[in-house]
Amino acid sequence: MDNQLTKELKEKYTIVFHDLNLLEQAFTHSSYVNEHRNLHLSDNERLEFLGDAVLELMVSQYLYRLYPDLPEGKLTKMRAAIVREDSLSKFAKECHFDQHVMLGKGEENSGGRTRPALLCDLFEAFLGALYLDQGFEVAHAFIKQVIFPKVKAGAFSHEMDHKTKLQEVLQKSGDVFIEYRLIKEEGPAHERIFWIEVYVDDQLIGTGQGKSKKLAEQAAAENALAALEE
Amino acid sequence: MDNQLTKELKEKYTIVFHDLNLLEQAFTHSSYVNEHRNLHLSDNERLEFLGDAVLELMVSQYLYRLYPDLPEGKLTKMRAAIVREDSLSKFAKECHFDQHVMLGKGEENSGGRTRPALLCDLFEAFLGALYLDQGFEVAHAFIKQVIFPKVKAGAFSHEMDHKTKLQEVLQKSGDVFIEYRLIKEEGPAHERIFWIEVYVDDQLIGTGQGKSKKLAEQAAAENALAALEE
Repeated sequence: MDNQLTKELKEKYTIVFHDLNLLEQAFTHSSYVNEHRNLHLSDNERLEFLGDAVLELMVSQYLYRLYPDLPEGKLTKMRAAIVREDSLSKFAKECHFDQHVMLGKGEENSGGRTRPALLCDLFEAFLGALYLDQGFEVAHAFIKQVIFPKVKAGAFSHEMDHKTKLQEVLQKSGDVFIEYRLIKEEGPAHERIFWIEVYVDDQLIGTGQGKSKKLAEQAAAENALAALEE
Repeated sequence: MDNQLTKELKEKYTIVFHDLNLLEQAFTHSSYVNEHRNLHLSDNERLEFLGDAVLELMVSQYLYRLYPDLPEGKLTKMRAAIVREDSLSKFAKECHFDQHVMLGKGEENSGGRTRPALLCDLFEAFLGALYLDQGFEVAHAFIKQVIFPKVKAGAFSHEMDHKTKLQEVLQKSGDVFIEYRLIKEEGPAHERIFWIEVYVDDQLIGTGQGKSKKLAEQAAAENALAALEE
């Protein structure tokens, strides 16, 4: 087994595998198995199948609780942004998993070690192995350390609506009271325009207008966010 | 709350919700919410988002363990067959969930109560609510009762290869020793043909031929299965 890997897992994540074969399998790419048929190794593809589902549940549960008012469509988009190949391959690199995966020579020479699809699968396979070896809670603690802080910091929040994002930004430094006030509406019923002001703890931070109250609120939140970022 | 529903859940699945609001939300379709805006209800879409991921993990884990030799591609196909709309809507009906979902009048009149997409979402929403209310183990026990027996009985096994299916069929009545014997190979290297016989506890149950040992084994298993079904 790769001693550097077990050492890093222990030091960075306090993870110690009971079954080192599982850990080894997670880091064994099919190209390595194919080049060493005499060793009768198993590649990491079945573990990836399992780890994919483990990650999906953990991320879903986290988003469900973090954003109690976000509709299903937005949650689904955000989850997709977090678990997509590109994101997971970055997490794999941050964990230095790319340095420890065992590849066949062909795969190594064609740059497999930096290929996003391979690193994404590797990350999921590791999670699958961890889940089998130590159960939901330990695997969850790992994801909590590696992925959730980025979600909370807003790395995937471009999928959110402005109102939710504003709420997230304002509540970073504690509970605040956010209020949307309709200050004016004009025009005939079929082309009415609404004016909304958004207040945080009774202080005006943005205004917006739109063809419905909902759209005007979104516009007000967007303007407030822009002002806050200046 | 729907008394008949809580009664059925208790009697059939020994499930008693702590938070009846969660159960009610799971059975509230968006069309009902839209027609009763004054009640400020929440529809079941966010619960469906969560339940979808809960189910995915439970099914993945079950298949991973049930078929220790099935490659990732086959596992993925089988999982997709189990969690697809058509299958889940049938499970929802078997649980009588269709009788308890609250729909708007428009949805009701257009046959929403029998619409597979709606029933599939309902099943997932119920699972999401159960998971939130009582955790992984209780939700798992429900799926174990409702879905896994069908998987084990082979309802989704058309996605499996013949060798795995044969093994599954033969091992239903206890452990058996299955052996594939190469009995003949003929022809030049580039178009060689292999003959395989498959034995169970030293009894011949099928023969097959193919351009590789693997293909010949699959053919032998397929023939054995056909003979067993006669």
